[in-house]
Amino acid sequence: MDEALKQAGLAEKRGEVPIGAVLVCEGEIIASAGNRTLELNDPTAHAEVLVIREACKIRGSQRLPECDLYVTLEPCPMCATAISFARIRRLYYGAGDEKGGGVDHGARLYAQPTCHHAPEVYSGIAETASADILRRFFLLRRP
Amino acid sequence: MDEALKQAGLAEKRGEVPIGAVLVCEGEIIASAGNRTLELNDPTAHAEVLVIREACKIRGSQRLPECDLYVTLEPCPMCATAISFARIRRLYYGAGDEKGGGVDHGARLYAQPTCHHAPEVYSGIAETASADILRRFFLLRRP
Repeated sequence: MDEALKQAGLAEKRGEVPIGAVLVCEGEIIASAGNRTLELNDPTAHAEVLVIREACKIRGSQRLPECDLYVTLEPCPMCATAISFARIRRLYYGAGDEKGGGVDHGARLYAQPTCHHAPEVYSGIAETASADILRRFFLLRRP
Repeated sequence: MDEALKQAGLAEKRGEVPIGAVLVCEGEIIASAGNRTLELNDPTAHAEVLVIREACKIRGSQRLPECDLYVTLEPCPMCATAISFARIRRLYYGAGDEKGGGVDHGARLYAQPTCHHAPEVYSGIAETASADILRRFFLLRRP
């Protein structure tokens, strides 16, 4: 989660919403990223989607069943679904997201009867640090 | 929708699940794609995500508020959320998807109180042709 927080910090320096994600396979980090939606003009370029796409490219597979995802904020419904499609084993996230989350809030995608694969979910990992960097970011941008 | 069906047919020829999508802005098609999840080893490479990413790149913006999306199958929760993030105006889709859909089935993302932007949704456009190409595809692959 330290590396995910580092990626969140790098995202902040680029003017992006400070969220970071890391994919770990067999004890090794194989992809890490922060949000790049502004830089890439791509609303799908959330940290989670970026690490999934990178890891799938590296592994030559659409599925990452031995891999665990660490992300500083509860994934949105888009990312939660991508995590499910990639068959990721465990999801560790930092802060909950009442407004935008899709795992433990909102659509709660893994609780839907139509969900084919749900990762094991562990929340509240480095919660304070993950929430603080976001709070500071939005505080500085408020008029 | 004819062009979306054409893209679905091209996807089928590549061995991909035959779903096609088209983005129309101000009366003109600015992006069209079929599924490329196998080819790209990318579980996020659904037709809808591909056209949104391409159109955002062309327009130099994360948001496509004047644009309408045509897709042969009801979008999954990942694509439904990406459509919302991109602020797409109208969504026209062909066949409903009881098992995998996230618009009128499953998580019904646009009905969630946490959804910031919901497109106008028109379903059942070229429904039979859109469903038939999928049915044939899965029938041929069944043992």
